[in-house]
Amino acid sequence: MTGYFPPVLEWTGVAVFALTGALTAARKGMDPLGFMLLATVTGVGGGTLRDVLLGRPASWIVDPTNPLICMVIGLATFMLGRRFAASGKTRFRVLMWADGAGLAIFAVSGAETALAAPSHPLTAIVLGAMTATFGGVVRDVLAGEVPMILRREIYVTAAALGASVYVTLAQSGVPGATAALSGVAAGFALRALAISRDWSLPSYPRAPQG
Amino acid sequence: MTGYFPPVLEWTGVAVFALTGALTAARKGMDPLGFMLLATVTGVGGGTLRDVLLGRPASWIVDPTNPLICMVIGLATFMLGRRFAASGKTRFRVLMWADGAGLAIFAVSGAETALAAPSHPLTAIVLGAMTATFGGVVRDVLAGEVPMILRREIYVTAAALGASVYVTLAQSGVPGATAALSGVAAGFALRALAISRDWSLPSYPRAPQG
Amino acid sequence: MTGYFPPVLEWTGVAVFALTGALTAARKGMDPLGFMLLATVTGVGGGTLRDVLLGRPASWIVDPTNPLICMVIGLATFMLGRRFAASGKTRFRVLMWADGAGLAIFAVSGAETALAAPSHPLTAIVLGAMTATFGGVVRDVLAGEVPMILRREIYVTAAALGASVYVTLAQSGVPGATAALSGVAAGFALRALAISRDWSLPSYPRAPQG
Repeated sequence: MTGYFPPVLEWTGVAVFALTGALTAARKGMDPLGFMLLATVTGVGGGTLRDVLLGRPASWIVDPTNPLICMVIGLATFMLGRRFAASGKTRFRVLMWADGAGLAIFAVSGAETALAAPSHPLTAIVLGAMTATFGGVVRDVLAGEVPMILRREIYVTAAALGASVYVTLAQSGVPGATAALSGVAAGFALRALAISRDWSLPSYPRAPQG
Repeated sequence: MTGYFPPVLEWTGVAVFALTGALTAARKGMDPLGFMLLATVTGVGGGTLRDVLLGRPASWIVDPTNPLICMVIGLATFMLGRRFAASGKTRFRVLMWADGAGLAIFAVSGAETALAAPSHPLTAIVLGAMTATFGGVVRDVLAGEVPMILRREIYVTAAALGASVYVTLAQSGVPGATAALSGVAAGFALRALAISRDWSLPSYPRAPQG
Repeated sequence: MTGYFPPVLEWTGVAVFALTGALTAARKGMDPLGFMLLATVTGVGGGTLRDVLLGRPASWIVDPTNPLICMVIGLATFMLGRRFAASGKTRFRVLMWADGAGLAIFAVSGAETALAAPSHPLTAIVLGAMTATFGGVVRDVLAGEVPMILRREIYVTAAALGASVYVTLAQSGVPGATAALSGVAAGFALRALAISRDWSLPSYPRAPQG
């Protein structure tokens, strides 16, 4: 049984991801269009990839609410950002936390849409993790930075955990909204711990050169 | 009422974008396959993204005319390019103007296809701007350069203007070909002014480091 | 008449490409998730692009066998890779040969799927070459390396040869399995010669700066 994902949660995820795009544009000193552009690709990139992989048109083709949210946030950040002037370090932290919230929300939203397609539960988890991370990858590649997905923090892992919790609960008959909120909470909690305690997974020793 | 976009205009857009890909390959000293590859991804990348986002197969799956145009231009540039040997600066200017023409054509062509899908008028403008800029983004990323889309010149803005003029006129009942040519003219005029007068939008002051 | 492509050949292509992703993760010193992620995008990236361009859902939406193969290979490489400790040079060579095998297999597999869609024979060759090279492009871009596709070795050329041999034979009525194996052999042979003899196509003289 697949769940009911509240639209307001989806909009929140779109908005916080859009904010991370706009904050990246601020760090790069871009113009208003750059703010709107980075906000939009980050905010709707993951959901668009999800739709395309499921073989359907992007959801914003008929309903432009999500891109509109992103453009408004991009423009507002350009115009108002200076009022909340903060050091680069503070700005980076806000970006990290907003990104973590978006990550958890999209992991569950992506898995939910995939389950309802329908698709295999394992695929739903993979698709959830991809929905959650793709917008940020495009944001980082376009801005010329190392994708956050490849830094050694617990990132994809948190998205995969959130999607797994949701899929397991939804497949067990737990009501959709409960399963969705549990998945978002689990994913965000792991990501929050990773951010605040600098957790990381063990890494592979680099190959000797030559 | 959506418009009639002349195929010859679409082929022209494909050809000039393919030329920008081939000229980039020349600047990087690539081999013939590299010329054909960069010409093709630049020439058909935008239209392909448009089709995929609309949930349909890429248009060249059944009709390979566009990729063929690109490959011929890529190969011809490799073989004949040396005859028109020019300084790097001149070559860069030719690239900028050809890119501007392709930008204006694809902005309108993308918006027209989206309107006919059908999709929301605002979505049609966004999709027009994406169709116009995506081929160049892939070209620049593959060639290891900063995407032109993120330089502080008026670029996406010109594409968005062209698409907006077309969508507004077409929705107001103006005949399709008139609306299309007006949109292309408006987009190219703004881009041309930006290139020749070094216009740019105001930018955000870079965040202090630390 | 289109051919019958043995599933075990497709799985082999997925597995060797996944291995190239995992070996890249090892060279970058990533964590287990990074290994699984790079293995998966490299292993299923090409086939996914093929499906999306043909306007259908990614094949792994309903059957997660391929991503599962990739994740297992990514995790196994992380856990067991140290046992087969080798110099960076040896590791790079293994990666080159595995990549060449995956290239030849996917060129034919992509062309076969495209022909069966159905699509134009020329499109099938282009799509075969794209299926063969896209996973590696994503792997290299995510890992911050210059895409192998743009180095001046015979790479796309080998994929295009394999796809062309397959399409020509299959269109001439040769049984599918024979056509497929001939295409794979031709593509791999050319790539192997290019690797072992450092073959490359003639390149364009770089433009003078300024």
